Amino acid sequence: MSEKLIGACIFGQSGGPTSVINASAYGVIRTALDAGEITNVYGAAHGIVGVLNDELYDMSKEDPSELKLLLNTPSSELGSCRYKLTEEKDFRRILEIFKKYNVRYFFYNGGNDSMDTCNKISAYMEKVGYECRVMGVPKTIDNDLVGTDHCPGFGSAAKYVATTVAEVYKDARVYNTGTITIIEIMGRHAGWLTGAAALAGLAGSAPDYIYLPEVPFDMDKFLDNVEATYKKNGNCIVAVSEGLSYANGTFVSEAEVSATDGFGHAQLGGLAAKLAAAAKDRTGAKVRPIEFSLMQRCAAHIASQTDIDESFLAGKTAVESAVAGKTGKMVGFEREYVNGQYKCKTILQPLSITANSEKTVPREWINEDGSNVTQEFIDYILPLIQGENSRKTENGLPRFAKLKKIKV
Amino acid sequence: MSEKLIGACIFGQSGGPTSVINASAYGVIRTALDAGEITNVYGAAHGIVGVLNDELYDMSKEDPSELKLLLNTPSSELGSCRYKLTEEKDFRRILEIFKKYNVRYFFYNGGNDSMDTCNKISAYMEKVGYECRVMGVPKTIDNDLVGTDHCPGFGSAAKYVATTVAEVYKDARVYNTGTITIIEIMGRHAGWLTGAAALAGLAGSAPDYIYLPEVPFDMDKFLDNVEATYKKNGNCIVAVSEGLSYANGTFVSEAEVSATDGFGHAQLGGLAAKLAAAAKDRTGAKVRPIEFSLMQRCAAHIASQTDIDESFLAGKTAVESAVAGKTGKMVGFEREYVNGQYKCKTILQPLSITANSEKTVPREWINEDGSNVTQEFIDYILPLIQGENSRKTENGLPRFAKLKKIKV
Repeated sequence: MSEKLIGACIFGQSGGPTSVINASAYGVIRTALDAGEITNVYGAAHGIVGVLNDELYDMSKEDPSELKLLLNTPSSELGSCRYKLTEEKDFRRILEIFKKYNVRYFFYNGGNDSMDTCNKISAYMEKVGYECRVMGVPKTIDNDLVGTDHCPGFGSAAKYVATTVAEVYKDARVYNTGTITIIEIMGRHAGWLTGAAALAGLAGSAPDYIYLPEVPFDMDKFLDNVEATYKKNGNCIVAVSEGLSYANGTFVSEAEVSATDGFGHAQLGGLAAKLAAAAKDRTGAKVRPIEFSLMQRCAAHIASQTDIDESFLAGKTAVESAVAGKTGKMVGFEREYVNGQYKCKTILQPLSITANSEKTVPREWINEDGSNVTQEFIDYILPLIQGENSRKTENGLPRFAKLKKIKV
Repeated sequence: MSEKLIGACIFGQSGGPTSVINASAYGVIRTALDAGEITNVYGAAHGIVGVLNDELYDMSKEDPSELKLLLNTPSSELGSCRYKLTEEKDFRRILEIFKKYNVRYFFYNGGNDSMDTCNKISAYMEKVGYECRVMGVPKTIDNDLVGTDHCPGFGSAAKYVATTVAEVYKDARVYNTGTITIIEIMGRHAGWLTGAAALAGLAGSAPDYIYLPEVPFDMDKFLDNVEATYKKNGNCIVAVSEGLSYANGTFVSEAEVSATDGFGHAQLGGLAAKLAAAAKDRTGAKVRPIEFSLMQRCAAHIASQTDIDESFLAGKTAVESAVAGKTGKMVGFEREYVNGQYKCKTILQPLSITANSEKTVPREWINEDGSNVTQEFIDYILPLIQGENSRKTENGLPRFAKLKKIKV
């Protein structure tokens, strides 16, 4: 047992939101509020930007029952950012704020880039000899973080994708005149979420083809497949990952790229429309491009209870581990099967584990043709979408958390 | 009480599907199976096309527990069509099929065009002296049918729109850098469904502006509004109806129109992208166009229980009324408030009531500026989205009805 460290904590949310990132927030905030070692629990407005700007909310001023509603409130309730720490003055400023409020615990919830931010802060504090325990809480609908079996946020997005593909499948096959439906799903370099479309098959609504970014896209082969299925069945439903790219590395949707985000990633979009147009040219069929857009990452009403529970657990574990003396770690998950039953346990990984790498779908979980996923892939995801959530509603509408957000 | 009419019935589904059109199907099928006067219950494959092609399913061969799952199965389980009856030979063929199976009851579930089909069949059978009772069961997410307070299917689509706008609102405001979000919602000439976006305000997530097709669209005024709100709040969320048109009658999305459906209606789409591009040009802001696409009409997982119950009731009432001697009628709804509590009762209307007319949103339920709906509009819709449905799930996925569809 390491020495007790008494002081305040700051919690921040970063990167693209998910349906359950606030469940991790609740895990951190609730556990921190209850921890004797933590004197004050501050939430940063818009992640690290809120630290730099000295914009902190006092979480102890919130109504506990409203805080609990964070479990079913989508998006990042404290605000998110895509700010990359590069300059020395940023680190000096963070140290200044940490000293101002006697911050001894820093919890940061985000994806790859956020774990990198976390790691840099941890290294800086160590370098300057300021005692502060830094813990990362992962989140991403992309499920591409190294060092964890799966990511908080992914199971709910996968449940949305599987459920919605099952429903769209029903709709898209309703007429006696055929349709080719192309569904575009998020995922720049990793196809986990797009692959979740295959789960719709368990509801009798499997897409005909699923294309992941892990395999170079071949437009001719794609059109051959779609044409053959359309001619045979009078219908064809395809799920595609926004990040599909040709063998030469260029994104299939590249002609549509018009802007980049703060990290220099290309902003993708319009792929479904592009592929639908190509399919129409080839077959003359009626086509329907569909983008799951923001809905796939914010549809809290269909969030997986397993994912909510695990997201909460990740936040809780970060605080408990830090209080117990750990620092510079990211909370990860390991799965085990007890009597065939899926169980998830937490592990701690070095923050650096996620740096400059993305966990993509293993090639052996994609069929030889590169046009669908295998049973192993389905077996991996299925436990993560289990459990209907028990969200609160009011007037037939979701009842989200209403935080007062009182500035310190 | 009219004379007992003994014979078979045919039930068909037509037009664009909804999340709950199968709840009406279940209302018809279950009630018909239980009616002593109805000897056989046939489901037509793809509506009237299935009658013309002599493709009928024997509904008595289905497992009753699977039939019941129709209550939560989206889309038209028997298949739909957009076939317009115009030629005399079509009517002769329908009579031939009716005689072949001794069909004395015909139930048809659809929108405007389907009620017209129903009306023509009713008139033809009367003209040729073939005794057959014909009843229409309304459905449409557009809520534009004359002769009924509201339409089966609308409440569930409205619940999807309100819930999803509430969630997207949360997501779209998460960054410290602003975004303009344009959400495109179905509705060619009637703005009922787009107006449902206003209900998100009850969850604290009201869109800034809502544009309905009932008011001529003014691009300059739209851009002025969006720019002003974006400058003031750093964010702007707008819901627009796919059918927005300029004062001269041309659709705003018209440049995108590439095909027409079987009834000569223009196929709309791409409006959100068009308006987002215009907003970007004006403000330089990051923009996000979103289409709710097929999801708004097939998301059975978030269907309103009130809508499911009423859709079932509409089907049941059609059969009970026909057995009791009624014919040539459409089942409609009338609302009443008993001690302030919303109640829905069924009425019978002449099938011709829907012909060549659409019920649009009253101008006085839209604000003067034409950029939002009024409280009266919200009060009208709110009862229709009440009730969380108790759908069956399996493996964390929807468990839809699995019909055997055994041909007669």
